Amino acid sequence: MALDTRERMIETTAGLVHRRGFHGTSLNEILAESGAPRGSLYYHFPGGKEQLVLEATREGVARITHFLKEISSETNDPAAAVHAFIEAAAHELRDSGFVFGCPVAPIILDSPESSVLAQTCREGLEEWQRVLVEGLGSAGIERRRAESLATMIVCGLEGGLILARARRDIAPLDAVAEELASMVRSALPRSTPLRAEPAR
Amino acid sequence: MALDTRERMIETTAGLVHRRGFHGTSLNEILAESGAPRGSLYYHFPGGKEQLVLEATREGVARITHFLKEISSETNDPAAAVHAFIEAAAHELRDSGFVFGCPVAPIILDSPESSVLAQTCREGLEEWQRVLVEGLGSAGIERRRAESLATMIVCGLEGGLILARARRDIAPLDAVAEELASMVRSALPRSTPLRAEPAR
Repeated sequence: MALDTRERMIETTAGLVHRRGFHGTSLNEILAESGAPRGSLYYHFPGGKEQLVLEATREGVARITHFLKEISSETNDPAAAVHAFIEAAAHELRDSGFVFGCPVAPIILDSPESSVLAQTCREGLEEWQRVLVEGLGSAGIERRRAESLATMIVCGLEGGLILARARRDIAPLDAVAEELASMVRSALPRSTPLRAEPAR
Repeated sequence: MALDTRERMIETTAGLVHRRGFHGTSLNEILAESGAPRGSLYYHFPGGKEQLVLEATREGVARITHFLKEISSETNDPAAAVHAFIEAAAHELRDSGFVFGCPVAPIILDSPESSVLAQTCREGLEEWQRVLVEGLGSAGIERRRAESLATMIVCGLEGGLILARARRDIAPLDAVAEELASMVRSALPRSTPLRAEPAR
């Protein structure tokens, strides 16, 4: 199914930002890769590159938030959910030829001038942490610890994506998935039945 | 003390790469910020930007390796060492106005064409992991677990630097330092005297 021009330009932009960062992404490349005429660019995105990257980032953030919620809803074992989430990110990275990692990290490290874009990145990270805190909380982990663990999980994933990309090998993400799952497991209250049952 | 031109250009390059990534760093900015004449650029760095970034990255990697070894040698408690290392990185990030994070992450996420540069980044990460594995190993943690923990520590730090930068607040790194130190502590063999003594 052919994507419409607007959607195709956003998808191309997302791919370029993942691969080359904010500053490495140019309008000319977006046009060349998406095959969109220059007129479409200014018609759909009067704000130019900033607007395109902003929309691509919003979509990327929403996709991950959705996926994280989906995984969390499939199990009431937060350790299994964390493991599954990181493994899914690892497979996506590998399947994309080690390009598709986090939609916000390459932008954060490039310090774009746009404060809206910076805010979108920050809010994306915060949203993922919130979803994780909820999952950990509903498994009985107290609020403060859940927040600390959620931060650790997002950081571990972000770092794991960098190491995996550098090595072109998902092994670092496998290690992170194991370590974080076991970290979550040992934070679960001892009275939780999950501790007594084998994970899934 | 005035740095010589060559060193000043490398330092300027390092700062720009930290702030704006590989593609966001241009020779013109390096010249403008370092105040070096264009002739010096081609005299000291016939390979241009690639060479400048490569030298800056090598220096950045070596500085962190040195620092990591120094911290590891100051204590035989690897949990305390990990905590101190991450806190030091957090303070450096904050003191630099949330710019100075990891010297290799912004390059890895920009996929520069140079394979030597990519290799330098990869080897930097591996070197830090090696130093950590040694420290964890000499505290009695068995090899495989030490390797997994070392990966987790580097990933946690990398991700923590991204979150802290996004929020302009080192709180995520504080959480990571606590979580990782406690992870290392619980991986120490129970017979180790460190478990019985209060940390430092």
